[in-house]
Parts: sequence; structure tokens; C-alpha cells
Amino acid sequence: MRRPEVRAGAPAFAIDLRVYYADTDAGGVMYHANYLNFFERARTEWLRHLGFELPPMAHAGCMFIVRRMQLRFVRPALLDDLVHVSAQPVLLGRAQITVLQRVQRSAELLVEASVNLACVNPRSLRPTVLPVPLHTRLEKDVRTASEQEEQA
Amino acid sequence: MRRPEVRAGAPAFAIDLRVYYADTDAGGVMYHANYLNFFERARTEWLRHLGFELPPMAHAGCMFIVRRMQLRFVRPALLDDLVHVSAQPVLLGRAQITVLQRVQRSAELLVEASVNLACVNPRSLRPTVLPVPLHTRLEKDVRTASEQEEQA
Amino acid sequence: MRRPEVRAGAPAFAIDLRVYYADTDAGGVMYHANYLNFFERARTEWLRHLGFELPPMAHAGCMFIVRRMQLRFVRPALLDDLVHVSAQPVLLGRAQITVLQRVQRSAELLVEASVNLACVNPRSLRPTVLPVPLHTRLEKDVRTASEQEEQA
Amino acid sequence: MRRPEVRAGAPAFAIDLRVYYADTDAGGVMYHANYLNFFERARTEWLRHLGFELPPMAHAGCMFIVRRMQLRFVRPALLDDLVHVSAQPVLLGRAQITVLQRVQRSAELLVEASVNLACVNPRSLRPTVLPVPLHTRLEKDVRTASEQEEQA
Repeated sequence: MRRPEVRAGAPAFAIDLRVYYADTDAGGVMYHANYLNFFERARTEWLRHLGFELPPMAHAGCMFIVRRMQLRFVRPALLDDLVHVSAQPVLLGRAQITVLQRVQRSAELLVEASVNLACVNPRSLRPTVLPVPLHTRLEKDVRTASEQEEQA
Repeated sequence: MRRPEVRAGAPAFAIDLRVYYADTDAGGVMYHANYLNFFERARTEWLRHLGFELPPMAHAGCMFIVRRMQLRFVRPALLDDLVHVSAQPVLLGRAQITVLQRVQRSAELLVEASVNLACVNPRSLRPTVLPVPLHTRLEKDVRTASEQEEQA
Repeated sequence: MRRPEVRAGAPAFAIDLRVYYADTDAGGVMYHANYLNFFERARTEWLRHLGFELPPMAHAGCMFIVRRMQLRFVRPALLDDLVHVSAQPVLLGRAQITVLQRVQRSAELLVEASVNLACVNPRSLRPTVLPVPLHTRLEKDVRTASEQEEQA
Repeated sequence: MRRPEVRAGAPAFAIDLRVYYADTDAGGVMYHANYLNFFERARTEWLRHLGFELPPMAHAGCMFIVRRMQLRFVRPALLDDLVHVSAQPVLLGRAQITVLQRVQRSAELLVEASVNLACVNPRSLRPTVLPVPLHTRLEKDVRTASEQEEQA
């Protein structure tokens, strides 16, 4: 997966999620599509952590939709695992953002994804610019990541 | 499960559905909540078969929501099973309907459900009467079932 | 829904869960089948809280499967709601247990369920008795609930 | 998304799938992760069409797991849409295969995916070679696609 390289030290928001029967399949492991739900939960909590909750954002005219996704499934999560799901902005545009996300079990990488999201108007589903406060807030994080990279 | 008794001979609409990995869990069988998705598919195709599709019905002011459900899980469906999922109206009110639904693998009963649905306004989510053409159409089927019962 | 009455004061285990896009449907509310996933999470955490985790229990020969379920959907949960999901044992048999579960948004009841679970052997899927330590532990809770009822 | 180019004329297996409430979210469209379930269904039916059903393959020591996935979401599917979901092998290795998959509504492309699958032993989850009959069968299709490309 070609993706923007991010230093291990760069700040990434993460939450812990438990794997329940609903998340698994008859192969005895987590069903691959269900990692996308885990990624959605981590992105939502990351935005909340930054002060942006979905319903007010939708009211203000911005709903995020996934446009592109690159996924790499390295090792399967198992029933009852407690996994660490992260979200870290790596690219920012006027109307879109790319987030690097990982599922880990302790230090072990299970799944990695690069998720490109566009901001659309909830009614028309047409692309629109990110709300200014969110763009300003994200710009700082993305700049920080880039600067750390340059210094690396 | 106490439910309106329906004679085996009463007409029931049914569709065949395949069990995929997405429908199963790490117990090696179909995940119990996913039968509810199968039931939704059968109800939707049954309404379509009667001439009532969901988007025009919603436009006309009626969206069905599940109010009560009684479920009995008899035997599990397995990966790659082709199951038969039925829907049969058994009770009809002005603003609600009760549907008997079954999942079978050939003659073998796997899951049985009694599903009580209310018609609500899609915007307000408030209860509203069923569209007249649908009520008229369903009345015939429910009456047929009752009459068959009385004669039994 | 006819269910064993439980006094409001009886001890119920509960967890808080967030409603994400994955849990909702085009009706703008939580999809009805997804409450069953929330119930599973609450039951699993309740058992963990009692000291019983699923993988060791499965190793010891007991996997819980849902046999019967009665559901009452009172009010819909909405996107981004934080709901309170409880689990409380109300009936205990040698090889089965009935759990009363509720989804609440603050004091408001959204969904209520009576869930009957059987303990089965993970390999044969045949019914088997509950592990003694779990049965002993649950007996206490169920007795407590009954006694409170009698005194009421 | 960089992917092996496949001529429009190359043979692709496809099935028609309906979008139900269970597949949608509060944004009013199909939830992005649920396209992965649709892709799984198309791949499974494509293999069945070639004469390879999952349970016998698992018995013979091969279970497919998704290793990499590149997804491009172009336009959303809506409730009650009937979509066309295709699967076409584009790269074949000894122990893996890459399948190009599309979701279309009539001629309109909704989602496109490149799915890399590995054959693993169902018990050890370790990579293993594809069963010879399947490899031989797929080789023919992949060769056909490549030849058509060269002639283009």
C-alpha cells in the first residue's frame, strides 16, 4: 500500500475496542468488512476529541463520506480481543482529508488503512469545503506530522 | 412463543437466501441478529410482490418500523446454506400489521418470528394509518388465513 | 411482552455504547437488528464483570446461544446517541438462563428484551449444563432479585 | 486507484443484489462497509459458478482471506436499488489471486475494488497454495483477460 509515511512518534488518536461475536465470522476471526466499522468509530471519536460532533457538523452542512480506501490485512483479530484503533490525519485539502488508521493488538499491527474522506452537503450529497474551524484545527496536526517527517 | 396459529396450508410468500461469511460468527453458525436482516429482505420482497415498493410508500407517508418481535431459534443455519425465508400476514390493524416469518432449510425449521410492524410518517416517526390500497390488499390475505383456520 | 417482573431497584449491570453510522439505517434511526449486537456486548461485559470470559468458557465446553428473544422497540436511538445497555439475570436453569436487557437514553426506555440463552458444547452445539462456578454465581443474583420481588 | 486495466469486453461474472434498510445508514445511502459484503457474495457465487463451493474447499484445506483491498466509492447506492456486482480475476499467483470487482446501477459505476485474496489453511490460518483444479480453471480466465489486453 503506497501511503504517506508517518513517523512512529507522530501523535495519533486511538480508542480501545472489543471484538464480539457480531464482529467475527465462521472462519473464527474478525470479518474483514467489520474493521471498517471499527475505523468509523475511531474517526468519529477523534473528531469528537477535537471538538467536532457529527450531528452539529451535518446541521452546518458537512457530512463526511468515504471516497477511497486502501486496506492491508496483516493478522486477524480474534473473538474477545481488545484492539487499539487509531486515526491520524496525513493529508488535508479544502474539501477532503486523508486519515491513516491502524488496528493493533498491543504492539502487533493487525490492519492498516488509508482513508480518503470528502465533505459533502447532507442534502445534495455534493462536495463542499470543510467547516473553517475544523480545517484550521486539522491543518495544525497535519503540519506537525509533515514537519516531524522532514526532520526525520 | 404465543402466536396466532396459522395452518400449514395458508399462503406464505418466501424467498431463498444464501448464508455468506458476513452472516456467520466465530461459533461457526449464522449470527443470531443476522436472521433479522433476512426477515427484512423477505418482508420487502413480499410487499414488492404485492405491488408496494418502499420508496414510493415512504413518499406517500408510510414507513414501516418494527415495534415488537418474538423470536425462536430452533436450529442454526450454516455457512453456504441456502435457506427459505417466508413472510405471512396474520393480524392487521389500521396502523399496524403482524407478520409470521420463518427460516427453513428444506423442510427443517431453523428460526421462527412474529414481527409486529407499525406504519409511521417518515419525517415525524409518528404512527399513521396504512395506505388504503395496501390495507385493502392485506385484508384479503389475513381474512383468507382466518377463514382457513375456522374451517380447520 | 409478558416477562418476569423485576423491581426497579434490582441490581442490573450496564455499559454505555455510542450509536455510529454503521448502526443506523436510511430511516435516520438505529437499525432494529443492531440493538441485538448492543445486547450481546452488554451480556459479554456483564459476564466478564462476573469473572467469566468467553474464550476460557468455550474451552471449558460452554458457549452461549440465543434460543428465544422477545423484543419491544419503544423509541428509536439516533446517530451519535450515547445509550445505556443493561443485562440482568431473571431466570436460571441448569442449562439455560434468561436475561432482561434494556437500552435507555438517560431515563428514557428505547428497547427492552427478554433473552433466553442456552449453554451448548462449542463443537457439537448440543445443550449442556452451565459451568458450576457460573451457575453458583448467577444463582445468588437471581435469588436476590426474587427476594426483592417477594418483599415488594 | 492503480489497478490492472481490464478491457470492458473481458468476461466478468456478476450477480444482482438489492439494497435493503440493513445495508443503508442515516446518511440515506448504502453504508460504505456494506459494499464489502456485496463483494463477498459476488466472489462466492462466481466461485460456485466455476464449480467451487466454500465448504468443500475448506475441507480440502483452502479458505480465502482478504489481504489487501483498494476501494473507490464513486456514487452511492440508495435504498431499494437493484445493483449489479461483478467479480473478475486479474492476477493469479500460486497462493493468491486478485479480483477486480464493481458495483453498478445499470451502466453507472458506483464502487470499484481491487481485492487481493490469499488461500490459507482453515485451521492454522497459514498461507497455502490454491487447489490445483481451481488454479487451472482460473489460469484460463486470467490468460484470456491478458490476451485481450495485449490485442487492445
